[in-house]
Amino acid sequence: MANEKKAVSAITSMDEDFAQWYTDVCTKAELIDYTSVKGMFIYRPYGYAIWENIQAELDRRFKATGHENVYLPVLIPESLLQKEKDHVEGFAPECAWVTMGGSEKLEDRLCIRPTSETLFCEHYKNIIHSHRDLPKLYNQWCSVLRWEKTSRPFLRHREFLWQEGHTMHATADEAREETQRMLNIYADFMENVLAMPVVKGQKTDKEKFNGAEETYTVECMMHDRKALQAGTSHYFGDGFAKAFDITFTGKDNVLHHPHQTSWGVSTRMIGGIIMTHGDDRGLVLPPRVAPIQAMVIPVAQHKEGVLEAAQALLERLRALGVRARLDDSDNSMGWKAAEYEMKGVPLRIEIGPKDMEKGQCCICRRDSGEKSFVPLAELESTVPALLDQVHEGLFARAKKNLEDHTRVCHTVDEVKQFMVSEGGFAKTMWCGELDCELKMKELAGVSSRCIPFAQEQVSDTCVCCGKPAKKMILWGVAY
Amino acid sequence: MANEKKAVSAITSMDEDFAQWYTDVCTKAELIDYTSVKGMFIYRPYGYAIWENIQAELDRRFKATGHENVYLPVLIPESLLQKEKDHVEGFAPECAWVTMGGSEKLEDRLCIRPTSETLFCEHYKNIIHSHRDLPKLYNQWCSVLRWEKTSRPFLRHREFLWQEGHTMHATADEAREETQRMLNIYADFMENVLAMPVVKGQKTDKEKFNGAEETYTVECMMHDRKALQAGTSHYFGDGFAKAFDITFTGKDNVLHHPHQTSWGVSTRMIGGIIMTHGDDRGLVLPPRVAPIQAMVIPVAQHKEGVLEAAQALLERLRALGVRARLDDSDNSMGWKAAEYEMKGVPLRIEIGPKDMEKGQCCICRRDSGEKSFVPLAELESTVPALLDQVHEGLFARAKKNLEDHTRVCHTVDEVKQFMVSEGGFAKTMWCGELDCELKMKELAGVSSRCIPFAQEQVSDTCVCCGKPAKKMILWGVAY
Repeated sequence: MANEKKAVSAITSMDEDFAQWYTDVCTKAELIDYTSVKGMFIYRPYGYAIWENIQAELDRRFKATGHENVYLPVLIPESLLQKEKDHVEGFAPECAWVTMGGSEKLEDRLCIRPTSETLFCEHYKNIIHSHRDLPKLYNQWCSVLRWEKTSRPFLRHREFLWQEGHTMHATADEAREETQRMLNIYADFMENVLAMPVVKGQKTDKEKFNGAEETYTVECMMHDRKALQAGTSHYFGDGFAKAFDITFTGKDNVLHHPHQTSWGVSTRMIGGIIMTHGDDRGLVLPPRVAPIQAMVIPVAQHKEGVLEAAQALLERLRALGVRARLDDSDNSMGWKAAEYEMKGVPLRIEIGPKDMEKGQCCICRRDSGEKSFVPLAELESTVPALLDQVHEGLFARAKKNLEDHTRVCHTVDEVKQFMVSEGGFAKTMWCGELDCELKMKELAGVSSRCIPFAQEQVSDTCVCCGKPAKKMILWGVAY
Repeated sequence: MANEKKAVSAITSMDEDFAQWYTDVCTKAELIDYTSVKGMFIYRPYGYAIWENIQAELDRRFKATGHENVYLPVLIPESLLQKEKDHVEGFAPECAWVTMGGSEKLEDRLCIRPTSETLFCEHYKNIIHSHRDLPKLYNQWCSVLRWEKTSRPFLRHREFLWQEGHTMHATADEAREETQRMLNIYADFMENVLAMPVVKGQKTDKEKFNGAEETYTVECMMHDRKALQAGTSHYFGDGFAKAFDITFTGKDNVLHHPHQTSWGVSTRMIGGIIMTHGDDRGLVLPPRVAPIQAMVIPVAQHKEGVLEAAQALLERLRALGVRARLDDSDNSMGWKAAEYEMKGVPLRIEIGPKDMEKGQCCICRRDSGEKSFVPLAELESTVPALLDQVHEGLFARAKKNLEDHTRVCHTVDEVKQFMVSEGGFAKTMWCGELDCELKMKELAGVSSRCIPFAQEQVSDTCVCCGKPAKKMILWGVAY
């Protein structure tokens, strides 16, 4: 128990200092390490394993919808980046520039990709000629680099891991359909795999991606009621295609420009998992991406037959497809309990001499702390069901947080008060003008999160200027 | 047939111009595309899918031997790279340097990783303190960049994809064992998955990795009898650990430096596959990494029931776990045959009205061109067996090439004549001196490939200086 207390006391409590709690979890659960370069982090094995599980789940969904993976260079010539005006304006200020190759000074300096639209367009120009070449449905798993001034594990790195989908279509309708399809895949993945409820909607013109015609987003609410933009999907129209002179001969035998999309999610989702589900004892991982779903711990392991029983239990779990491990180290039971709570392992399964006598094991859920004694004969039916219950429990708790802290507001003051006193998503009507969006930032400290697909008429006038409202919009404070 | 001829005539023949044949295969089989940055290539979906299959096979083997994946930054500060003298001397001349971050000029310039020993050491210093922290068995999948003057698809890119294993051990023995374990995993993988026979051996001091004490290699012989270094495994001793001040408290309660290894293979193996197995009709893929193992082609597909029969065949193959596709496009049979030969698909399976009557399909092997009629009832037993036979056939042919063109030589002149007239691996005795190694390059145009583990006493004296020989060595001309 001494060990357990020691381990637990090492994390700052969420209510005391949420930011410090977050950093403590990232480092003590061994998800991440710092490096000597500011803003560049190391994804440690436990953190990277979460990303591998995320990748496997998403990659399967991408391939099932006809997408293919490719890999394009890490470096983009400045001249190529400059071909699309809005795009370069958005990204050039935060690029890292390669100016020397070996001992040779480069004529055209190269930036490390902040995103790869321009490279994909250069390639698409080479390979798209006829309507038979469309659609092109490509995805890339890679890292990107943005020279941010501030950084935070998972949420804002100078270099982070992500996937970027880039597709080309014969018609605007097809491209728009793709933009929605991928947003829906993200939403489904976040809710049904990460147990993170989302609000789907469209970004305002101010908040959309540089160079996009339309940007769609899935927004999540963290435990501290701040917003996390967890994934985006963009419709580009034929703007890039025109800038890069990409054309194809249609069925009508006439040259057309194809229509483009891009969409991405990143390791920022791991930050979202931590801040959605974590608690004062550490990380709480949604079972479907947890690197270890069940940790088997022998009790009084020096006693005859205990280790063998624990090992048999482990084998049965693995045969079920459960990602299970056994800790038979000489650390105390208290230390083990605290350690795997810190690491967010969904189920802790203990078995000792008394359990063996009764033909049972003791299963403790990380999300609720609930313990139950499960007959060994029922292991195969109980464990998968418990993992699903942990998922459902996490999702329900996060959904309640989102619903409890989304508030209809009618005035700027009301929004401001809501943010100061409680925090969350302020739901208001909006006239659609940039001026009002800027004023909301200035007067209430909020940015627009999205224009939700699920619209309601919460009043008739804009929360800010009082003119007739066009849309319902969500405001919040974002990571 | 017109189409088929056209497609086939588009490749240069191997005997006419092997280098051009190679480039033709890389581009026409749609493995790779060029970009506007010299030496930087695009891995197209078909090429990248081979890499994904390679990754899956290797990653499984790495994890089964206790390794964990991590991800470290793409950028290394110049000051960090300089900590190990031999290492920086080897790599600094071919680094790409980031000198600007956004609009800010960097004080310590950063290179894009050419390899990550230094970053791993910085991290290991943070996380290794006690013998309980050892071993650390880490692997990273990433891209690296080396500012090469010349380039060639898959064989020499400025940026290429690879994996780099980096491990730390309590003792030299354990580290040496790891170095051999990983070399053996590479050798087994290349022979049993890529169907590429290897020679295992040690690199000479001249050819070893910058900063390593010992470098081990798997060397392959290409169809044109040149050598390809397909993978390497390095033992570092405690040199880096001392340079980076990494220590741990041993069981003896005394501070020690850990012992280190690193090992890597890259997309260069795809170049090896092409040059080992390919022929004048294009790519020939070893079945165990082929993105498409069997292509189902309906014959006279407009006739009743043909498409349904082809679809049923496809489903049965997929249920077997075979990576199968169906081409029901309106391209001609000739075009389809030539296209999937070009793409190296191991089995082409045709089914038409006559086959349906007889309850059979026609299976054509890519490696031998052999056709056989297979009763549909025997599909499940025949196809996996045929895929294994293609693997074995490719391996046997490559093994014969290696054996037929490995020649014992006793004089420098003999080596030179062998290289000019025939090419291959010259097997000689060697005194072990650098001088003789340099002379072999100067006089016979060969570099040392390795000191094979399987030593023979082919004479008593060094091929070059005539002094007493220490070892048998292989010489060749390398990619």
